[in-house]
Amino acid sequence: MAMDDEVPGAMGTSASFALRLGQTIFSAASLLFMSLGVEFHSYTAFCFLVTITGLVIPWSITLALIDIYSVLIHCPFRQRGILLFIVLGDWALSFLTLAAASSIAGIVDALHRADATFCPAGLCSRYQISAGLAFLSWFLSMASSLSNLWLLPSLTR
Amino acid sequence: MAMDDEVPGAMGTSASFALRLGQTIFSAASLLFMSLGVEFHSYTAFCFLVTITGLVIPWSITLALIDIYSVLIHCPFRQRGILLFIVLGDWALSFLTLAAASSIAGIVDALHRADATFCPAGLCSRYQISAGLAFLSWFLSMASSLSNLWLLPSLTR
Repeated sequence: MAMDDEVPGAMGTSASFALRLGQTIFSAASLLFMSLGVEFHSYTAFCFLVTITGLVIPWSITLALIDIYSVLIHCPFRQRGILLFIVLGDWALSFLTLAAASSIAGIVDALHRADATFCPAGLCSRYQISAGLAFLSWFLSMASSLSNLWLLPSLTR
Repeated sequence: MAMDDEVPGAMGTSASFALRLGQTIFSAASLLFMSLGVEFHSYTAFCFLVTITGLVIPWSITLALIDIYSVLIHCPFRQRGILLFIVLGDWALSFLTLAAASSIAGIVDALHRADATFCPAGLCSRYQISAGLAFLSWFLSMASSLSNLWLLPSLTR
């Protein structure tokens, strides 16, 4: 049966390491675009994105380290309880990232339309880039979560 | 093995019918709160929510009808290709609903802070209720999608 084979992107594979690395990089870039030299605390959604990326970065780094260790010792990750925890964590973080990214995309659009003075030159495009990077991070997070979820039923036996 | 048992909430069960009914009701309520007597086309996110709820309502009604038919003839739904299509459809719609709901939540907060004149009395609370209903619809959509995804690997055999 195919289900006992390695699932690409599930914990302990090099694809998973690549996904975690991507999540870390995109989240960190999104955080930097949002917070460096900009008063990001003016709207709730901006603080929310900063909070979420601040959670995603350590989470992804930790799991990337577990992945690389697992690849190096050639031992796939097969612990059901921990995997369930990781799936749920990825799940929650990916939804929160999507929510943060889309609120910022909505706000930038609304500020553009409401009044040009709310959107000084260069500031809104920074917010847009930040939202775009958060969307990419969400996508990779969801891919990780799905891969691990796909692996999960095969561990019930 | 437990995986061949009925998965609660998967296609063709009465729990799934309840989930679909909830999705339809919450989406329809969200659509009504957003569009009745309000000029919802002033921001992109508002049009987006209206579009998405307009997609979710027929999708959920169709699947609710399939569910109730499946319950009545006592025959659980076990077609892999169609189930995969339904999982992907639910998946996409739940993400789009979440994105729409959180952009609206973000915009309402931003409008409150930017200038009180953008938010006439009663209008912003309607938007908030609409976003809240969309969040509920997202939650039920995700539950359906997860149940069906959980059923999917057991159909590979």
